[in-house]
Amino acid sequence: MKNSLYIVIVGCGRLGSHLANQLSRVGHSIVVIDSNEDTFDDLSPDFSGFRVVGDATQIAVLSQAKLKQADVFFATTHGDNVNLMVAQIARKIFNVPHVLARVFDPRRVQIYDQLGIETICPTSVAAEMFLLAVASSRAAAGDAKP
Amino acid sequence: MKNSLYIVIVGCGRLGSHLANQLSRVGHSIVVIDSNEDTFDDLSPDFSGFRVVGDATQIAVLSQAKLKQADVFFATTHGDNVNLMVAQIARKIFNVPHVLARVFDPRRVQIYDQLGIETICPTSVAAEMFLLAVASSRAAAGDAKP
Repeated sequence: MKNSLYIVIVGCGRLGSHLANQLSRVGHSIVVIDSNEDTFDDLSPDFSGFRVVGDATQIAVLSQAKLKQADVFFATTHGDNVNLMVAQIARKIFNVPHVLARVFDPRRVQIYDQLGIETICPTSVAAEMFLLAVASSRAAAGDAKP
Repeated sequence: MKNSLYIVIVGCGRLGSHLANQLSRVGHSIVVIDSNEDTFDDLSPDFSGFRVVGDATQIAVLSQAKLKQADVFFATTHGDNVNLMVAQIARKIFNVPHVLARVFDPRRVQIYDQLGIETICPTSVAAEMFLLAVASSRAAAGDAKP
């Protein structure tokens, strides 16, 4: 029955708009919230979801996005604190089953974990990829030989 | 012979300082370049590498970092254009064998590829992780059933 999910995305920057465009394209119902209306310019012409202009840390704005009906909630603003706050509201007050927040500061990941918020940390992922590159350079430099 | 690599890192933000600390700790020779001296505060007390204060798009600054001897070069500033520029200088002028640049805008990745610069795009990686989360939500919502 449920082929399409109801997904609310806070933040319409590079990541938020990319997710909104992709997920709308494959048939999900999307609502994007951003306090800056100009960011909606990054939504593609075939984006079929809704745009809500407002501060997502305000319950009224989240209610306007019909957050209670959401299957998935993404917090993708550039502020780690904003993401944590809206993610907690989505989880605890609106009972959204699947909540994810982007967090730039790797030191915060553990705190978010303890607060029950699933996170994605692009900084840590990038760091791992850079460190892998070093490992491959060591191999190329003949590090295996004593 | 070559257990330790000579690694030059441009940008001492969250990613740059994390890489510098990690790689110094395991015995590599590190030089970090940043135009803002305050960013070096994020280097750990046991960081054994060198700090260079300056604009890394200037050849003189890169020479001061002894870039010619580098095995690996990382461009990790918050500016995609700066990263592309310094990465190209490292590759083409200083002939560093392994050059990597962080790029936030996924649309630029292809251009950088064509210019021979290996990139790591945290935005794309984060997007993939968010999309995977949606896939798991669909599965949980019983999407498999028609």
